[in-house]
Amino acid sequence: MMRGKFIALEGGEGTGKSTQARLLAAALEKNGIQCIVTREPGGTDGAEAIRSLLLSPPGSGWGAKAEALLFAAARSDHVEKLIRPNIERGAWVICDRYLDSSRAYQGGAGGIGDEAIIKLHAIGSDGMLPDLTLLIDVPADQIAARLQQRDGDVSDAIGGRGVEYHSAVAQTFKTIASAEANRFATINGAGTPEEVHHAILAVVQQNLGGK
Amino acid sequence: MMRGKFIALEGGEGTGKSTQARLLAAALEKNGIQCIVTREPGGTDGAEAIRSLLLSPPGSGWGAKAEALLFAAARSDHVEKLIRPNIERGAWVICDRYLDSSRAYQGGAGGIGDEAIIKLHAIGSDGMLPDLTLLIDVPADQIAARLQQRDGDVSDAIGGRGVEYHSAVAQTFKTIASAEANRFATINGAGTPEEVHHAILAVVQQNLGGK
Repeated sequence: MMRGKFIALEGGEGTGKSTQARLLAAALEKNGIQCIVTREPGGTDGAEAIRSLLLSPPGSGWGAKAEALLFAAARSDHVEKLIRPNIERGAWVICDRYLDSSRAYQGGAGGIGDEAIIKLHAIGSDGMLPDLTLLIDVPADQIAARLQQRDGDVSDAIGGRGVEYHSAVAQTFKTIASAEANRFATINGAGTPEEVHHAILAVVQQNLGGK
Repeated sequence: MMRGKFIALEGGEGTGKSTQARLLAAALEKNGIQCIVTREPGGTDGAEAIRSLLLSPPGSGWGAKAEALLFAAARSDHVEKLIRPNIERGAWVICDRYLDSSRAYQGGAGGIGDEAIIKLHAIGSDGMLPDLTLLIDVPADQIAARLQQRDGDVSDAIGGRGVEYHSAVAQTFKTIASAEANRFATINGAGTPEEVHHAILAVVQQNLGGK
């Protein structure tokens, strides 16, 4: 059995990752590739339970360290029970957020530092990386307009943090994408969903096949 | 303000840790020392929520790596919000299980290894150690008899693991206590609760004061 591919979509709030994950899977499925669309934190029963704790924290909210550990725990469950088994049986896994979100949010914006996040990932998930990581880049003013149109679903404990936090997230994503250009493609996310989809599909097919 | 002391009670299931934590606190309180009795996993709203996930896992149960990360996350919250602030304001904190349980259960019996557990603790809780760790040692046959008398409260996802797992836990506790003898005292836990209490109180007062 040929190993499937592992694609992660990354970017801040409101960059269109989940929409693009669905569109990408539909296009690949048309070409006969079985795709699993999943998300982080979440994707398994255990990781979805951790997601609830992260986005609606009990008590006074998580510190950055506990938050980073919870993300790593959810990812460990997700990799072990969903991502790795599906890739090994030949499916493609398309994941809305993965390790680089932890690096950008808890590592960069949260101040834990990149080294700690990488260590947690080594312990929790054997350091497993995507074959291709798509960083969807949308100008900050356009993001702000999009988020204003959304309902309550960005008012969670992480999405609801301030402008300074989210601009540190965006900056860290860019830094990681430049430093690890071999596994990243930065996608201009400013256009319509269809335009962004076509850009993503072209990059995926160029890098991983799937035509 | 003089810094308080931090005492952890360690040992396998049925060794009497929670009873001894209460008895120790009551004796110290009589001598005018303010004590906080707490437990792991748990002790704060966040950590108690993680405790529920650990002892009643959603889905098919946690792998050893995710479990170790969840314990480290709960400990991070516990140290940040309860243990450290109370010690800093001068109270003594008596904790039913702490880091060495993670080393014995997930590190030793779970196969994650000691180094990984130590790394998680460095990231999550700045490596904070107790001033004194009391390892309560009870012969295996006596433990088995005690656990048979208990109700359902040992049938959780961790306590309910097999004999081989729990004997690896006991062995790892002994190895750690020998290797780090400067912060450990091993207590003979085979006697009555009162006998064990008097042994513990003597060791605590000899090492930390509190008369």
